[in-house]
Amino acid sequence: MALTLYTLCGIDPARPFSPHCWKAVMALAHKGLAFEEAPVPFTKIAEIEGGASRTVPLLRDGDRLVADSFAIAAHLEEAYPDRPSLFGGAGGLAAARFVEAWSIATLHAALSPIILVDIHDRLAPADQAYFRETRENRFGKTLEEVVANRDAGIAAFPDRLQPLRLMLGRQPFLGGEGPLFSDYIVFGALQWARVVSRAELLPEGDPVRDWFERCLDLHGGVARRVPAAAA
Amino acid sequence: MALTLYTLCGIDPARPFSPHCWKAVMALAHKGLAFEEAPVPFTKIAEIEGGASRTVPLLRDGDRLVADSFAIAAHLEEAYPDRPSLFGGAGGLAAARFVEAWSIATLHAALSPIILVDIHDRLAPADQAYFRETRENRFGKTLEEVVANRDAGIAAFPDRLQPLRLMLGRQPFLGGEGPLFSDYIVFGALQWARVVSRAELLPEGDPVRDWFERCLDLHGGVARRVPAAAA
Repeated sequence: MALTLYTLCGIDPARPFSPHCWKAVMALAHKGLAFEEAPVPFTKIAEIEGGASRTVPLLRDGDRLVADSFAIAAHLEEAYPDRPSLFGGAGGLAAARFVEAWSIATLHAALSPIILVDIHDRLAPADQAYFRETRENRFGKTLEEVVANRDAGIAAFPDRLQPLRLMLGRQPFLGGEGPLFSDYIVFGALQWARVVSRAELLPEGDPVRDWFERCLDLHGGVARRVPAAAA
Repeated sequence: MALTLYTLCGIDPARPFSPHCWKAVMALAHKGLAFEEAPVPFTKIAEIEGGASRTVPLLRDGDRLVADSFAIAAHLEEAYPDRPSLFGGAGGLAAARFVEAWSIATLHAALSPIILVDIHDRLAPADQAYFRETRENRFGKTLEEVVANRDAGIAAFPDRLQPLRLMLGRQPFLGGEGPLFSDYIVFGALQWARVVSRAELLPEGDPVRDWFERCLDLHGGVARRVPAAAA
């Protein structure tokens, strides 16, 4: 198979969880490309493709290696122009950079203090040690301290999505009538939480929740195949 | 002249201030279209074009009348396809709806409690009465109560722009290498504040401030011609 996507998993390789890897999975599915997904844990990333990248997703496409979810989407758009567009033109690609920045600054920043320990608990011991050390360095406190106000974070989370909620009053996807890569950027963040955590982040009847369900249904339900985190 | 844009002014017709009208001005300038700007105060909107619209901007383009800034941009894109694109394709247009929702939910919501009294103070007496009544109804408190925590709002404002700031590390405009209507959407909010208020919203050296200055320079400096609010 010509296309291999290296993604991130914990102790269970059937439950890849990285938001950025989910963006790449959805981008490949959107293009209708067959690919093999190869989930690896944190401490094995350095071993894939001869140490080609310190991060996943990493895409092997024939003789090309592409790291970074946005770069992967841009590569697919360029390499497979006859398949459904991921950006809907140059303006859509540029705007996707804003959506990416919004997702990182607003959603990822709010989700980390909710799901950080959930992630830790789903890793194998060697990855737990790596994860704890790198994240505690990044946040300047213990994982447990980062999630100390988890319940308040969950309660405050829906408000973060107000711009998307407002937009959904006009159109069903960030891409307009159908999804584009911008949808997958935001979807990735919420799928990250769905796969690792039982936190209920969006109330029933929330238009954002309905949009998320629509995304789970896309492309043969590729993202729904991984069940939501269970007890 | 075939194109007339009705915009919003206070007591000084040379200082149109509505964020939505500025979006339309920038869209017309982006297309390189000559137009006459006709600023009207709040209480005269009902009189223009035989009461065609309850809001401005309102564009007269030959025998067409188009209300609403986004509808105006979409109309210009369709009617003048050979001039520079405002959206860079269908994906850019769809994404601009997200930028619009983000600007309303994040920037307008934060600016109102900073500049509401500034706006009031720049209106003629009849418009002041209209403005006070409609806004106090909307907010459920007096104008003075809305701006009671103005200084805290000013201090918190730069953080609202973090997604744009993060994106500006990658590209100079929401439109990518050059501006698109999405830039004018966000620009409109900050220009609204610039024209009516002396509040210093962005620190020197902030990439968002630099981007805003770039927008003021666009299209012959059309938006800089109205000086910033003075004492």
